[in-house]
Amino acid sequence: MASPAALADYSSRRGSLIADDRSMRREFTHANAQSDKEIKADKIIRKIRALEAETIWREDHPDVKHPFPGMEFLTGKSIIMKTRIFEILSKMPKGALLHSHLDATVNAEYLLDLALKHPFMHIRLQQPLTAETLSSNIPVFRALPAAYFTNHTSLMSAEVGSWISLQNARNSFPSDFGGVKGFDKWVIGSLTINPTEAYDTHNTVEKIWQKFTGIFLTSAGLIRVQPIWLEYIKQFFRSSVDDGVSYVEARINFLPKFMVGSDGQENIPHREWLLLFEQALKDVKEEFAQQGRGHEFIGAKIIYSTIRAITPEELDWYTEDCIALKKEFPHLIIGFDLVGPENAMKPLIYYIEPLLRFRTRVEEEGLDIPFIFHAGETLGDGTEADVNLYDAILLGTKRIGHGYSLFKHPKLVDICRRESIAVEVCPISNEILRLTSSMLMHPLPALLNNGVPIALCSDDPAVFGNMGLTFDYYQVFVASEINGLSTLASLARDSIQFSMMDAQEKAQATAVFEQRWAAFVDYVLTCEV
Amino acid sequence: MASPAALADYSSRRGSLIADDRSMRREFTHANAQSDKEIKADKIIRKIRALEAETIWREDHPDVKHPFPGMEFLTGKSIIMKTRIFEILSKMPKGALLHSHLDATVNAEYLLDLALKHPFMHIRLQQPLTAETLSSNIPVFRALPAAYFTNHTSLMSAEVGSWISLQNARNSFPSDFGGVKGFDKWVIGSLTINPTEAYDTHNTVEKIWQKFTGIFLTSAGLIRVQPIWLEYIKQFFRSSVDDGVSYVEARINFLPKFMVGSDGQENIPHREWLLLFEQALKDVKEEFAQQGRGHEFIGAKIIYSTIRAITPEELDWYTEDCIALKKEFPHLIIGFDLVGPENAMKPLIYYIEPLLRFRTRVEEEGLDIPFIFHAGETLGDGTEADVNLYDAILLGTKRIGHGYSLFKHPKLVDICRRESIAVEVCPISNEILRLTSSMLMHPLPALLNNGVPIALCSDDPAVFGNMGLTFDYYQVFVASEINGLSTLASLARDSIQFSMMDAQEKAQATAVFEQRWAAFVDYVLTCEV
Repeated sequence: MASPAALADYSSRRGSLIADDRSMRREFTHANAQSDKEIKADKIIRKIRALEAETIWREDHPDVKHPFPGMEFLTGKSIIMKTRIFEILSKMPKGALLHSHLDATVNAEYLLDLALKHPFMHIRLQQPLTAETLSSNIPVFRALPAAYFTNHTSLMSAEVGSWISLQNARNSFPSDFGGVKGFDKWVIGSLTINPTEAYDTHNTVEKIWQKFTGIFLTSAGLIRVQPIWLEYIKQFFRSSVDDGVSYVEARINFLPKFMVGSDGQENIPHREWLLLFEQALKDVKEEFAQQGRGHEFIGAKIIYSTIRAITPEELDWYTEDCIALKKEFPHLIIGFDLVGPENAMKPLIYYIEPLLRFRTRVEEEGLDIPFIFHAGETLGDGTEADVNLYDAILLGTKRIGHGYSLFKHPKLVDICRRESIAVEVCPISNEILRLTSSMLMHPLPALLNNGVPIALCSDDPAVFGNMGLTFDYYQVFVASEINGLSTLASLARDSIQFSMMDAQEKAQATAVFEQRWAAFVDYVLTCEV
Repeated sequence: MASPAALADYSSRRGSLIADDRSMRREFTHANAQSDKEIKADKIIRKIRALEAETIWREDHPDVKHPFPGMEFLTGKSIIMKTRIFEILSKMPKGALLHSHLDATVNAEYLLDLALKHPFMHIRLQQPLTAETLSSNIPVFRALPAAYFTNHTSLMSAEVGSWISLQNARNSFPSDFGGVKGFDKWVIGSLTINPTEAYDTHNTVEKIWQKFTGIFLTSAGLIRVQPIWLEYIKQFFRSSVDDGVSYVEARINFLPKFMVGSDGQENIPHREWLLLFEQALKDVKEEFAQQGRGHEFIGAKIIYSTIRAITPEELDWYTEDCIALKKEFPHLIIGFDLVGPENAMKPLIYYIEPLLRFRTRVEEEGLDIPFIFHAGETLGDGTEADVNLYDAILLGTKRIGHGYSLFKHPKLVDICRRESIAVEVCPISNEILRLTSSMLMHPLPALLNNGVPIALCSDDPAVFGNMGLTFDYYQVFVASEINGLSTLASLARDSIQFSMMDAQEKAQATAVFEQRWAAFVDYVLTCEV
């Protein structure tokens, strides 16, 4: 009774509806049609993904309770790193990294090593050291002027609150606390979020943000020291490039008006920060050029940021500071943002006067400093953080940082597609900061199907452990049957297209990307299943 | 520099954008404009909600780790029940309950009491009883023919696998297992999902579904016994009406061709099930009429369902069975569905031939049996369960059961709005079955803002503990700053409008609802803040 004609008709209507539903996806709008090679490579990685879903993700892992592809990153990371998909994606060219907070971009081990090179780096306790409370005993770091150096040789003998040199504190760390290794583990624990915190003791958006913001206060003492900062930035560039990232736009928090110099004084103003940034850029470009990898690193720029906890009057100072820096470093300053926990701090509308003033001032000065706002990094519906999305868009934001709640807003989704406002999606960050419990619950598929331009970003990889972009690409790739090789390419291409590079840089970045992409496809074709 | 005119202009554009973004919400399309009273009542409940978010939801609750409004239902239920919002919502008229599985609609305590009235009800063990393994030791229930009655007096003395009368088993339950109370707790535990299972031991969609489907196998032995079934249905109606529900459409699983009669034989065919349903309906209507509450209960109908694990050939038998029942009980059978875990069982496309045949047959017979399909009850993206949404819509589904992944599909969302395909959203079910970790992560706001008609539903309240609809309304109401009194009214009105009642019944249900709604608003006005 269901005739072949009826079945054929149904099948044809079905194919059309599915195609129509997915027709806005940007992988279809990118000019590059899939080559035969890409079609073959796509089949290969889908096959490996399916195989690994049924093998490594189904096996018993003694330390991992409920393994599945796209699971909580901090628990699943050890499994991810054993997969072939991870190995393959680590070789993929990723385009640009458009959303990362500079203070959380270099892994904690490396940062500690950097700090340990400097005798002026000091540490102090806020409470007595005991083995039981070690993990919640957050140390304080600072570069001290020589006049304040102490002769304490151990954290145990020094009074709580007294400074002791970092090197001494480490070398004398009690053996029942693990000695030198125990010291490193303790310090690194204070600079990162661990699975117990994310998934148990701090398992709400509000609680994990308390730990998260605490980390920035702690790490600033180590990072924001002139000679360390320079090396820190260089390492950020190197590790990004090693992961296949060609270009970065880092958000730098300019709230503190000075960083600490080698003399231990807080006296390095913002314009010197930019000189250091420029120096790091130049040095690392030379390094890569010397290795014959010069084409792999296009460059780096800065989104000027301050914290959404200041007063509107204070914001006027920062916007003028931003304008002054833009005039001196027009190639480095490419946007303005307000950062910090959206649920807890001030909404954009609170700053509407200084923000409108800033826009007028920028025009008067004939400058180009677009807003690139964080907005909608929230589970709230109609809350101030959610409503930030309206203001970000009305204020002409070039991109949206996170836009986690964007999918709820039909008109805003429409505007983002039509006006090409890209969203900087940070999958692992969203999950660790408890907006989503796993990649499977993330609303990204809704944005992709609605044709919103997307750039995947790592946000704070030093805190989350998702160094580079491979981990974020991994989580996105394994959480959807729709996502394929062309999705990966589309995300990487969008990251270049929606960066703030100038036309010439973009052309260069695109040419390099396409060449590397072709090589990547060739590599995938060699991956036997 | 930001002139008053510029600020006023911004403010006006902002208001327009927000209004535009929310303009599709159905609370604005319902003819009923908000009265002054409603506007006042809305302010009152918003104020209480805000107050309780900052008081009861922030207090320390020794048994609840991370309390917040919209949290995991099984953990938060005790707090919910202490709130004034819950008390208020429990008095709200709810319209229709459009998605519930009959076998999971009466609370387990009541069911056990019903079963204990019948000496023919028996129980047996599948493994020896020990105190340690009690909670995982799932009993088996059955009504036995008298010839099979045993003289075992205790589960401890009977061999594993031997039947013993339920009454005896209970009365002799060992005191070190808690005696009679321990027995009740054990049985009820086998019929419900507890917080440890949902949020710890079975904390993935796949694992919790294993427990979930197991419960239906266990409870069938108690429920699908003619005299119990009749009382069971009556209690479902009563408790629904007591919660403010005026009308229900229950999915009944017709997979087993017979239920057990009072004689312990499996010999009661489907048409007799419908006679029993009709009897229950008549009896409960009379009960309410006698209490002067006749207007509170409009009626109940049935969505014929079978399990999506059968073969396409077997489905032909069920569709013909459905047609035969529809002919005899045209006022009771109002739709057809395939149920069971979508991720694990067969997709709609697997049944495309019998389903198309069914549609032709229904037309030939001049009947009206629309599909009312489960679809998209999944975290999958592009998986068979997600793709079910396309097939449900192409097959002309009148409503969509769950549609959890619908928000990802722009064209389907559009179709649902334009063609008035309502979605039966089951917030608490979705959370306990681990599609979402809390109401804050649920995609419902996206559907509401897109103007998709929504009916809130309880799905399997006997298993989840969300009896009635108050709990589901609670979770939705407290998880959004946008949702207000008019949202609640809109959801209830949609449940009536998108039910399968005939025009006359709908008119009656609507008239009763509007009258009760007005009384509810008056009541809210009396709720001091």
